[in-house]
Amino acid sequence: MEPKCRVWVVFGEKMKLGDGRAHLLELIDELGSLRQAVAQIGMSYRNAWGYLRDLEKAAGFKLLERRPGGGPKGGMQLTQDGRDFLAKYRRFRTHVDTVVERQFARIFSKK
Amino acid sequence: MEPKCRVWVVFGEKMKLGDGRAHLLELIDELGSLRQAVAQIGMSYRNAWGYLRDLEKAAGFKLLERRPGGGPKGGMQLTQDGRDFLAKYRRFRTHVDTVVERQFARIFSKK
Repeated sequence: MEPKCRVWVVFGEKMKLGDGRAHLLELIDELGSLRQAVAQIGMSYRNAWGYLRDLEKAAGFKLLERRPGGGPKGGMQLTQDGRDFLAKYRRFRTHVDTVVERQFARIFSKK
Repeated sequence: MEPKCRVWVVFGEKMKLGDGRAHLLELIDELGSLRQAVAQIGMSYRNAWGYLRDLEKAAGFKLLERRPGGGPKGGMQLTQDGRDFLAKYRRFRTHVDTVVERQFARIFSKK
């Protein structure tokens, strides 16, 4: 018997960011390309693009920007706000995981 | 911006119990009837019955039993093990919610 937990950060009414979408953002930054990132994840370009646009609108800050000096084909990277946000999300996720494991062990090991 | 969290207790390889199924068990106990409980939730009887059978098998203890003196049509109630388990689940859930709110406020309010 073990616990499982999923968390999301919710912006506005219904824009959610969880592990999958945090991974998408990190992958875009790593590869410098939304197109390559969605191909790797197996997500449609149109869906990812729409999601990111709606997320930035709901969040009220830019998460991604054009990589400087990228030439005509550009390339993308996380903004400083995006980087800060993801670092907080990762910290939050780790804390929650730790507490879930600890509380589960504490509560379910008792008779 | 706010957190959202879902938790489950996982038995064996893949039997999961989360809020929805905890509610189903409580409703069966309250109404004394699986048939009435699934009707209220809008779940199929066959699915609910299969799930409960597999859950008890994975958990290794009975969650539901025939209500004593129920006559030919019987009626169902939680076993003592089932009651203890659900009380722990509710306690676990509440603790996790509290910590998620607290950690979220702590981490995301910082600049």
